[in-house]
Amino acid sequence: MPNSHRVEHDFLGDKQIPLHAYWGVHTARAVENFPISGTPVSAMPELVKAFGYVKKATARANLQLGVLDESRAYAIMSACEKLIAGEHHDQFVVDVIQGGAGTSTNMNANEVIANLALERLGFEKGRYDVLHPNDHVNASQSTNDVYPTAVRLALWFGIDTLLGSMAFLRAGFEAKAEEFKNVLKIGRTQLQDAVPMTLGQEFSTYAVMMEEDEQRLREARALIQEVNLGATAIGTGINAPHGYAELACQLLAETSGVPVVKAKNLVEATQDTGAFVQLSGVLKRVACKLSKTCNDLRLLSSGPQAGFGDIKLPARQAGSSIMPGKVNPVIPEVMNQVAFEVIGNDMTVTMASEAGQLQLNAFEPIMGWSLFKSIQHLSNACLTLQANCVAGIEANLPVLEKRVRESVTLVTALNPVIGYEKAALMAKTAIATGAPLDAVAESLGIMTREEIDALLVPEKLTQPMRLVANGKATLKA
Amino acid sequence: MPNSHRVEHDFLGDKQIPLHAYWGVHTARAVENFPISGTPVSAMPELVKAFGYVKKATARANLQLGVLDESRAYAIMSACEKLIAGEHHDQFVVDVIQGGAGTSTNMNANEVIANLALERLGFEKGRYDVLHPNDHVNASQSTNDVYPTAVRLALWFGIDTLLGSMAFLRAGFEAKAEEFKNVLKIGRTQLQDAVPMTLGQEFSTYAVMMEEDEQRLREARALIQEVNLGATAIGTGINAPHGYAELACQLLAETSGVPVVKAKNLVEATQDTGAFVQLSGVLKRVACKLSKTCNDLRLLSSGPQAGFGDIKLPARQAGSSIMPGKVNPVIPEVMNQVAFEVIGNDMTVTMASEAGQLQLNAFEPIMGWSLFKSIQHLSNACLTLQANCVAGIEANLPVLEKRVRESVTLVTALNPVIGYEKAALMAKTAIATGAPLDAVAESLGIMTREEIDALLVPEKLTQPMRLVANGKATLKA
Amino acid sequence: MPNSHRVEHDFLGDKQIPLHAYWGVHTARAVENFPISGTPVSAMPELVKAFGYVKKATARANLQLGVLDESRAYAIMSACEKLIAGEHHDQFVVDVIQGGAGTSTNMNANEVIANLALERLGFEKGRYDVLHPNDHVNASQSTNDVYPTAVRLALWFGIDTLLGSMAFLRAGFEAKAEEFKNVLKIGRTQLQDAVPMTLGQEFSTYAVMMEEDEQRLREARALIQEVNLGATAIGTGINAPHGYAELACQLLAETSGVPVVKAKNLVEATQDTGAFVQLSGVLKRVACKLSKTCNDLRLLSSGPQAGFGDIKLPARQAGSSIMPGKVNPVIPEVMNQVAFEVIGNDMTVTMASEAGQLQLNAFEPIMGWSLFKSIQHLSNACLTLQANCVAGIEANLPVLEKRVRESVTLVTALNPVIGYEKAALMAKTAIATGAPLDAVAESLGIMTREEIDALLVPEKLTQPMRLVANGKATLKA
Amino acid sequence: MPNSHRVEHDFLGDKQIPLHAYWGVHTARAVENFPISGTPVSAMPELVKAFGYVKKATARANLQLGVLDESRAYAIMSACEKLIAGEHHDQFVVDVIQGGAGTSTNMNANEVIANLALERLGFEKGRYDVLHPNDHVNASQSTNDVYPTAVRLALWFGIDTLLGSMAFLRAGFEAKAEEFKNVLKIGRTQLQDAVPMTLGQEFSTYAVMMEEDEQRLREARALIQEVNLGATAIGTGINAPHGYAELACQLLAETSGVPVVKAKNLVEATQDTGAFVQLSGVLKRVACKLSKTCNDLRLLSSGPQAGFGDIKLPARQAGSSIMPGKVNPVIPEVMNQVAFEVIGNDMTVTMASEAGQLQLNAFEPIMGWSLFKSIQHLSNACLTLQANCVAGIEANLPVLEKRVRESVTLVTALNPVIGYEKAALMAKTAIATGAPLDAVAESLGIMTREEIDALLVPEKLTQPMRLVANGKATLKA
Repeated sequence: MPNSHRVEHDFLGDKQIPLHAYWGVHTARAVENFPISGTPVSAMPELVKAFGYVKKATARANLQLGVLDESRAYAIMSACEKLIAGEHHDQFVVDVIQGGAGTSTNMNANEVIANLALERLGFEKGRYDVLHPNDHVNASQSTNDVYPTAVRLALWFGIDTLLGSMAFLRAGFEAKAEEFKNVLKIGRTQLQDAVPMTLGQEFSTYAVMMEEDEQRLREARALIQEVNLGATAIGTGINAPHGYAELACQLLAETSGVPVVKAKNLVEATQDTGAFVQLSGVLKRVACKLSKTCNDLRLLSSGPQAGFGDIKLPARQAGSSIMPGKVNPVIPEVMNQVAFEVIGNDMTVTMASEAGQLQLNAFEPIMGWSLFKSIQHLSNACLTLQANCVAGIEANLPVLEKRVRESVTLVTALNPVIGYEKAALMAKTAIATGAPLDAVAESLGIMTREEIDALLVPEKLTQPMRLVANGKATLKA
Repeated sequence: MPNSHRVEHDFLGDKQIPLHAYWGVHTARAVENFPISGTPVSAMPELVKAFGYVKKATARANLQLGVLDESRAYAIMSACEKLIAGEHHDQFVVDVIQGGAGTSTNMNANEVIANLALERLGFEKGRYDVLHPNDHVNASQSTNDVYPTAVRLALWFGIDTLLGSMAFLRAGFEAKAEEFKNVLKIGRTQLQDAVPMTLGQEFSTYAVMMEEDEQRLREARALIQEVNLGATAIGTGINAPHGYAELACQLLAETSGVPVVKAKNLVEATQDTGAFVQLSGVLKRVACKLSKTCNDLRLLSSGPQAGFGDIKLPARQAGSSIMPGKVNPVIPEVMNQVAFEVIGNDMTVTMASEAGQLQLNAFEPIMGWSLFKSIQHLSNACLTLQANCVAGIEANLPVLEKRVRESVTLVTALNPVIGYEKAALMAKTAIATGAPLDAVAESLGIMTREEIDALLVPEKLTQPMRLVANGKATLKA
Repeated sequence: MPNSHRVEHDFLGDKQIPLHAYWGVHTARAVENFPISGTPVSAMPELVKAFGYVKKATARANLQLGVLDESRAYAIMSACEKLIAGEHHDQFVVDVIQGGAGTSTNMNANEVIANLALERLGFEKGRYDVLHPNDHVNASQSTNDVYPTAVRLALWFGIDTLLGSMAFLRAGFEAKAEEFKNVLKIGRTQLQDAVPMTLGQEFSTYAVMMEEDEQRLREARALIQEVNLGATAIGTGINAPHGYAELACQLLAETSGVPVVKAKNLVEATQDTGAFVQLSGVLKRVACKLSKTCNDLRLLSSGPQAGFGDIKLPARQAGSSIMPGKVNPVIPEVMNQVAFEVIGNDMTVTMASEAGQLQLNAFEPIMGWSLFKSIQHLSNACLTLQANCVAGIEANLPVLEKRVRESVTLVTALNPVIGYEKAALMAKTAIATGAPLDAVAESLGIMTREEIDALLVPEKLTQPMRLVANGKATLKA
Repeated sequence: MPNSHRVEHDFLGDKQIPLHAYWGVHTARAVENFPISGTPVSAMPELVKAFGYVKKATARANLQLGVLDESRAYAIMSACEKLIAGEHHDQFVVDVIQGGAGTSTNMNANEVIANLALERLGFEKGRYDVLHPNDHVNASQSTNDVYPTAVRLALWFGIDTLLGSMAFLRAGFEAKAEEFKNVLKIGRTQLQDAVPMTLGQEFSTYAVMMEEDEQRLREARALIQEVNLGATAIGTGINAPHGYAELACQLLAETSGVPVVKAKNLVEATQDTGAFVQLSGVLKRVACKLSKTCNDLRLLSSGPQAGFGDIKLPARQAGSSIMPGKVNPVIPEVMNQVAFEVIGNDMTVTMASEAGQLQLNAFEPIMGWSLFKSIQHLSNACLTLQANCVAGIEANLPVLEKRVRESVTLVTALNPVIGYEKAALMAKTAIATGAPLDAVAESLGIMTREEIDALLVPEKLTQPMRLVANGKATLKA
């Protein structure tokens, strides 16, 4: 089929490219070189979109500074808009795991944009003498500035989505905190019964944790807003006209709606991946907290007969292929696993960052891919956690009530009245004999039943208060 | 469209299932519950195949022990063979990241096999009154034994492929060790010039490292050959007939060709994920070594003008979108990134393993997926490393020769003759003045030029030898 | 020796305590229970000091709120001042790795303070009927609020020291950046020669990275300023009088000079270890950057004959027991190892944080110890890196000059004039033939020698600039 | 005090050394260069001892091969015996975290041994003209072979101790498995009630896990028995006489009693740290399992009123400074923390291993120290876990019995009789109504009470068995 291919060449020689392909020789070589994961860059639509924004902003800057003529500049910008609109993403075929510091992804973008632009100008694909992937699409640029810039923009979009998912989940916890605000229960430390609290207090902690994590995430996002666009090869700005960096960054902010700012020291910004490590560290923090929260949900709902049984999770699917009627906490479990993945991804990001050398970190592709997965999976897991689990959680009222009534832990409140050592004796005796605290106190000659019953009112023990010796619970101040 | 769906039900109620689907209600619920990564279980063809083998072996065991009649058993086995042959893998639609300890993957398999079997028996899909996913396909089984067994089998297949890729790469290193066996060079420790060696010795280390890693991998593979098939829910074998475990394991070994053996203590084997941690640890070791090797290749080929320049890697693609003619070590770089990913995956596996509770580890899905990626990516990276890099490596002979000739490090060999302190003085002087060692020795009055030239013959210094005071290099014994 | 011991008791029974010991029965049991690392809590003097501040502030709050009488309160405060002054730290004998969520460290503090206070009041050690470790020293407190508060305060002190060490090192890099600001060199990406820059630009990146990291560290420090003092057992404030939490936090800030603030939600703050994870993540980021920086220093100083040789590190010790005169980059190497340790510690902190359950995280001791080591070792390594290495770095001027003069990478600057493809041809030819760029350009008929020599002035290529076709380097704007 | 110091010198100049010190100038410089952790090498007595064995074996080999004369050789060997006997360990003063690939530790050993030997020969310390740390003690050696060899030997000793501690703990689990072999309980998967088992089965899993881990550890120990003694600087054996490597290894095995063997390829063995990664990976596996086991112990003993309460751990210390009578699982908690530390250490080892370059890994000191801590802390934690916790565990018989009697999970056994779907209906109804299974079966018209009571005998459900339709539990075969 002589008509099915065109021939492109680079400094290694000629190469046949399928006629329909918008990508070219550099992309083709990369596809051969990196058959690693089978997942193409198009699996990160935010990244393709981000390249659209970056190449559009740089084309406009090049136009304003006289580097590109109007005809080519507008053709390039028009091509970029297609990528931004979600078109032609299937042309981003290089593997997400690739050598070369992102050059292959950048060249994939340069080639696709060049050929889309050529098409718009009325030329056939491959007519790089008219509009060249390097000389025109990549003008005033290097992979080493546009790739990190695009990755940061893509992560920004991803974080935006994640923040929404976290807020959705947080609202769920807040609703439950409100719903359960009067449900008394026994708190636990080190898996041992501690002192009374409300189930609402317990759920409010999950909401507060989320809120704090959202704040940390916003701070980490602010760090990745700083881009090195205009740095070109190593941060010295070689081959970019004076003033280009400032202009391109400003135009990128305008075009994308993301408040990117130019880094102060472009040499540093070109080799530094600290913001990725920071972001990954914050995602790890989010993962830790969500995993802890889901561990709690699984513990609190353990049973139904031989567990904690404080709450009931909504049944979402049969829990077992052999045990009929078994319902498992499958939604929290999937969050746990996402958390483990995110923590593993953080290690990958850390190692890749540490391995940077001299003027560049060649390992940004695996950082970008790891962060992308962490963000996307956390976001999805938050959504299913709220919709399919938290929203349907119910308190197991009879169990909780009975436990509060019988709990030996109430003795803690007596410390200020009878001292730690007598209180310990009461606790030990109550556990050993199974007798209620008031009876124990009386039999040990510490207090009368009436005195103790007047003191130990669980509802009052869920807030700051110090019992005093006359037997009345008062708010000392 | 009343005809486009059938209705299935479980204990949560009815659910519409597309008529064409071989999967059923349990799978449908899982798809709704776990919209996490977008990657379906079919992305692990080895796992689907492994389920085919496991369900075939269990059906046969059930037939022999009278649990299944011939008609159902053969229909099930026939369905399994289709999966083994690679058919219907697109029916495995649950997400690779899922809660529920693999129940959803097992139920996906049970449903697909049940409907394939029903079809073969002449019934419509969904006629579970005739042949039931749980009662028949899953007879004498629990997710908790068949899922880990299938995962282990799938990993075994994957390791087999990886071992082949590693051997391919090792052969490449061995060929280079042979090719370079007479090429002298200066070895380096702590990035500082050390003593002479051959480039062949250097490359032989990469081959030896691979060989040792292959051996470690074979050992780790032997550990995952131990399966808990027959354990059912928690290892006590509830609902499996006496003798079933032994028989099912034996039949699985026969059917699959993988030498699986039944674990001695099924309760332990059902909750234990130590073999996954061990395998992951070995994969991490492989990753460390390959990353170190690729770091070396990148160092040794650094330059072309301002680097080590001991060797040249074959050019595989343009290295830069801005710097013309730049060639980068993109193939070793992709291996580095795979290594970082594998090390991150090991952390995920570790956390998932540690999080197991009581009679089961609910987090095997993320372990399986992480291990699968590590194995597949390492295997692919070994192939491209050999084919696209190692095979084309050339020694930079003029540079190496010149350096050996001029190297101050040769002074080390004089220790036994003149003592460490005088030798240190010679080295310091030679570095400071740039003068050759023989001239330095003479000017310091330590030896004549003739004496020293007779002693310091680089070729002889790449093997055990101790110079003696009469000025002759001899093999002391 | 009847006089060598006193007898103390707890709910487990009696126990002999050496007469000289200020610690008591709870400490003694903990020492028996946790013979793990052999390193006592006194190895963290900041933590002992922090306990002094916390117990002093709480005693004062208790006094003001009528919980403690003047006599006991002042005796306790006086004892605390001794700890703050560095006295009696040897009495903190429990192992840094301990079960029990810090209870043993808190009880160790309660007992030491009680006995010091008793001594001051004129009583013998052990007279807890007069002044009790729990009822008085620990009044209105629980381990679960005072221990995390003390750990945070101790970390705050540690970070303060670390920030000083980082600033010291940063100033060193800044001085070198200034010293080398006119030294031209060839930058490198992916270990391959890239384009010209100055050695000053290279060193300025290390300073900027440090500066950013200091900022991140200050942000992380701000998060650990938030304490849960007043939360008591689980955050509900049980047994603390109303208003106590606010007062105790305010007094702690006054006493210690550290701007601690009370957490808004004490139930959340009592179980949340997010601030530790965040701090550890930032320390990991610092470690990554410092390790990368030291990798660079080792690369740049590699040689002396067969390496990069851009710079010379000061010799600090003999590099080898066998190779005379060998000088190794031992100071950067120790920083690398500290970085690896810090990254490992981060994993420990992460796992400990994720493992928290319900109202408390029982694993704060290992978090505190890990963070303490990370901070202390990083601080020490920064000091030695600056004093024993960076301060003495010299540029290898002849080597750098020669390389810039001969470098093929300058061709990059010609892109705007002759296009990427012709420039690539020039580069390829120059590398293959060893001929200088101007000769190559002429022989290929691309430009005359005069034209190219006028264009390629390395000094001008270290800043934004775009060559234009008439052959003049101009600042386009 | 003119007599308090002697003067030593190296190529950097003169240095005053305290007269009493057996270490010399190289050690003094290292102490100045590496003020990192404050922990000296003497904190690893196994390593000092190992240096004794290595230097003794090499002295003997040097004697036999004519490199050392009798007088010096015997003096050196005598000095080594002192180190082996535990004397003079306080002379090993360099920091455990040090740059330089172990050179400082090796020179510390060379100097201490030289001065001890000089003393024996009747000379003053520092008379290196008579017996030199490098020329004689270090003869035929390099740090690069003796340091890794000594580290391996030291780890071997450590593992030996750890294996003993693990066996001690395993015996404890085995005893409990026997003690509890007839105690029925409800097993749990995913924290939800599963099917019956015995508490003995549960504890037997802990013993089996330990046993498997001991086997893995023995395998990992076998890998570190392979040493590179005789490799000298980079594995080529420069400066060692022919036959030395074989002889030195053989003598080391004889002297130390550890079956060390010479690595086949000494160039590879000198740079390879795979055995450390493997060992660390196995320690991580051990840590994961022990952490999981302790998580289980904490879960099973949760309560006393609001938890699982299957077992009771022995009380070891007061659990709380505020909650009287509270007993916490402090011993399992300390093991959890050790496990987190070990997993962190594994990350440190991994990063250090990956960072090796060319002919050497400069980061063995941090690997050795990390592994040493992991081994020692795990060993100590195993001892306290058994002695202070496992040995005293009691079953909570009344609770376990009641739960088995009432458990809905028994319905699983009915699958073969009534099918999964009817069984699921029974389970759902029983949970919702609280009615016992037999009543539910009857009310749903599935079976009579008598039939079901005859079938569901919990004792029989803890082993392979398949109920059949006639209502009798039979062993199908």
